[in-house]
Amino acid sequence: MKKIDKGIGKSALQLVLANSDEIEEAETHMKDSDFIYCLGKTGSMELQKVVSAIETAAKRNAVIDEELYREMHALYHAILEALEGVTRGQVSLGDVMRTVGLRFSVVRGRPYENEAEGEWIAVALYGTIGAPIRGLEHETTGLGINHI
Amino acid sequence: MKKIDKGIGKSALQLVLANSDEIEEAETHMKDSDFIYCLGKTGSMELQKVVSAIETAAKRNAVIDEELYREMHALYHAILEALEGVTRGQVSLGDVMRTVGLRFSVVRGRPYENEAEGEWIAVALYGTIGAPIRGLEHETTGLGINHI
Amino acid sequence: MKKIDKGIGKSALQLVLANSDEIEEAETHMKDSDFIYCLGKTGSMELQKVVSAIETAAKRNAVIDEELYREMHALYHAILEALEGVTRGQVSLGDVMRTVGLRFSVVRGRPYENEAEGEWIAVALYGTIGAPIRGLEHETTGLGINHI
Amino acid sequence: MKKIDKGIGKSALQLVLANSDEIEEAETHMKDSDFIYCLGKTGSMELQKVVSAIETAAKRNAVIDEELYREMHALYHAILEALEGVTRGQVSLGDVMRTVGLRFSVVRGRPYENEAEGEWIAVALYGTIGAPIRGLEHETTGLGINHI
Amino acid sequence: MKKIDKGIGKSALQLVLANSDEIEEAETHMKDSDFIYCLGKTGSMELQKVVSAIETAAKRNAVIDEELYREMHALYHAILEALEGVTRGQVSLGDVMRTVGLRFSVVRGRPYENEAEGEWIAVALYGTIGAPIRGLEHETTGLGINHI
Amino acid sequence: MKKIDKGIGKSALQLVLANSDEIEEAETHMKDSDFIYCLGKTGSMELQKVVSAIETAAKRNAVIDEELYREMHALYHAILEALEGVTRGQVSLGDVMRTVGLRFSVVRGRPYENEAEGEWIAVALYGTIGAPIRGLEHETTGLGINHI
Repeated sequence: MKKIDKGIGKSALQLVLANSDEIEEAETHMKDSDFIYCLGKTGSMELQKVVSAIETAAKRNAVIDEELYREMHALYHAILEALEGVTRGQVSLGDVMRTVGLRFSVVRGRPYENEAEGEWIAVALYGTIGAPIRGLEHETTGLGINHI
Repeated sequence: MKKIDKGIGKSALQLVLANSDEIEEAETHMKDSDFIYCLGKTGSMELQKVVSAIETAAKRNAVIDEELYREMHALYHAILEALEGVTRGQVSLGDVMRTVGLRFSVVRGRPYENEAEGEWIAVALYGTIGAPIRGLEHETTGLGINHI
Repeated sequence: MKKIDKGIGKSALQLVLANSDEIEEAETHMKDSDFIYCLGKTGSMELQKVVSAIETAAKRNAVIDEELYREMHALYHAILEALEGVTRGQVSLGDVMRTVGLRFSVVRGRPYENEAEGEWIAVALYGTIGAPIRGLEHETTGLGINHI
Repeated sequence: MKKIDKGIGKSALQLVLANSDEIEEAETHMKDSDFIYCLGKTGSMELQKVVSAIETAAKRNAVIDEELYREMHALYHAILEALEGVTRGQVSLGDVMRTVGLRFSVVRGRPYENEAEGEWIAVALYGTIGAPIRGLEHETTGLGINHI
Repeated sequence: MKKIDKGIGKSALQLVLANSDEIEEAETHMKDSDFIYCLGKTGSMELQKVVSAIETAAKRNAVIDEELYREMHALYHAILEALEGVTRGQVSLGDVMRTVGLRFSVVRGRPYENEAEGEWIAVALYGTIGAPIRGLEHETTGLGINHI
Repeated sequence: MKKIDKGIGKSALQLVLANSDEIEEAETHMKDSDFIYCLGKTGSMELQKVVSAIETAAKRNAVIDEELYREMHALYHAILEALEGVTRGQVSLGDVMRTVGLRFSVVRGRPYENEAEGEWIAVALYGTIGAPIRGLEHETTGLGINHI
């Protein structure tokens, strides 16, 4: 019956993992699908700025309707869940002396065959986390998924 | 100087994200690199079995040397960090009535240009998490990276 | 514009806080509102049983449609959030040698003036938490709210 | 023997849940009991200010004796436990781009029949949590209880 | 005024850190002080057994009065805080495939000059944590302190 | 085979627990061993400053090589683990209105008999945690251990 046959999470992850020569194909693939999405970059020692950058991009690109709290609520929790993967333990950056440089994607659509399942949202993050010194960093990723 | 130019984390993620028709290419790509790796599947309501399945695969495929605690210690923490991304908040499964079905990869190698940085290990997870009822689930992912 | 004028959370809390002589009034008040709800009791050292009892009651009383994952997903996260309030720190019971005796309510409805905000769900918990010895316990509460 | 017959936690919750026309009755009820209490409001994106507002009110209203560390210690942990219920997962506000508007009560007294159980303290919180934009918020609650 | 001049925490730590030839001196030192204490060993993959072993020892040695919930409550939270130091992140053992072998001490007394500060309790833990395979382990410690 | 016979963790703890008349002996004992170490003090409401003070001391005293990310990575995670013991629940200070005054030690060496286990690092913390008011504080400790 219900099946994740369109992989909204995988779609979101592939957008942030794509190299500069793969991104065009990844974006074309998204445009051919029923999903809508946005893609961006953010880097900061302040978690607040990371949350804010993703929210702003999702609003500006009309991936979510900022007039509706239910949509903002769905997005917010998907962002926080993705940040759990990025921060792995304590959802904080500067407070524990670390910084991130991330690519993010927000994908919205109907990933289940059953139409009644409605729309869902996926937030994917990929980039680096480390000390606030160039090179002292390793890769990190996170994925948050929510019904909308 | 130091740069994540070989992307040990991205390599690990691409292995678990590959479809059945992409996996051969992904594995060939790995074999051409200096990285060693293993790939597997695990599904359970018991977190303990997930940890154990990954550890066993890494040992059997000689990705890590089980005789050395330092290698087991590096792998263990990379697994736990990847599970933070999968569980997003509370590192538990059955206790909070949920189950996972995951593909995992463990990749080991030298991701930094500077040889002195030595070996690192990446654990990537991708699959589904949800209620212990077929279909009541969504995608989830996690990545843990550690020096070895 | 949007305003929590119907207090879905407060409604849920008042149901679990009502004494035996207040419960009739509280239930009448609910029946006069647009909210649908269910009310129950659960007690266990196993968190899994607490989650399960609430899910089962919500399904049996048709507060949520168990055929739809989006509804189960909304309920599940509302339950977990309510349990954060009950457990205050580590979402576990028997593992850290404690047990709960709880009244729970699940309330579903439209708490915002703006119709487009749609339906939301609130899970309220109230009871005791303590050592698995009669009397060695104090009160505890929790509230989780989610869009549905 | 021991029994939570006076419900210090429920008393604290009812104070913060009372509407403007119920508060007088709730306060009268408290004055007739052996409990002492204080009641206040606080709103902030900074968790520090929330903790501080509650501590200050409890000191000014002589609910606790600020000269005694043991009393401050009991209050502090009760506040933190109540905040776990409010924040549900990560005890932070502005860092994860959210703000609260809360009513709080601090109640002190002897909730157990056995006199030797001595005094206990309850901190209850009720209000809204959400984005720092009017209306993008839902209800939240928390209760912390400690021996004093 | 108030000062931690008797170091209840340090006293508890020194008891668990003492080698076999230092333990006699450490115990003599304790007996000369106003503190009462108990000392024991516990090892398990089940957190529940660790909590239980410490509680049982504290009761049997009359460090706390098991008839009084306020004393059990003070001890319980001190144990949990000590376990946060031992587990560093997720308060779980077997669920994440690890085991502990610990020495524990529970010390009770008046650590502050001001008599009104009354009695406090300290729980110290020291030992090893690691995989359930001999030798794959490293040291770990934890300290919890509470008013009683 | 492998055995924690040199106690890198206990060595680190004894350095921070030593009184002014014991410190000389403790340091002499360290100098006679194969371990290298540094010792310092830090106090702050900002966690960032605590992390930074320990990192700076370890670099200046050549306990770790700041040019190598793998060493900084090992140290960083050992510091965070030690801070879990100090903060017991939420790794934050000023945000939850508390401050610390800590002695810290960083010890590096080969604690296992098997030479192949290589070098490990231990970070020990001991001091006080409490309200930002003199005297309203109790003792706290933490220990983090990592392979390097």
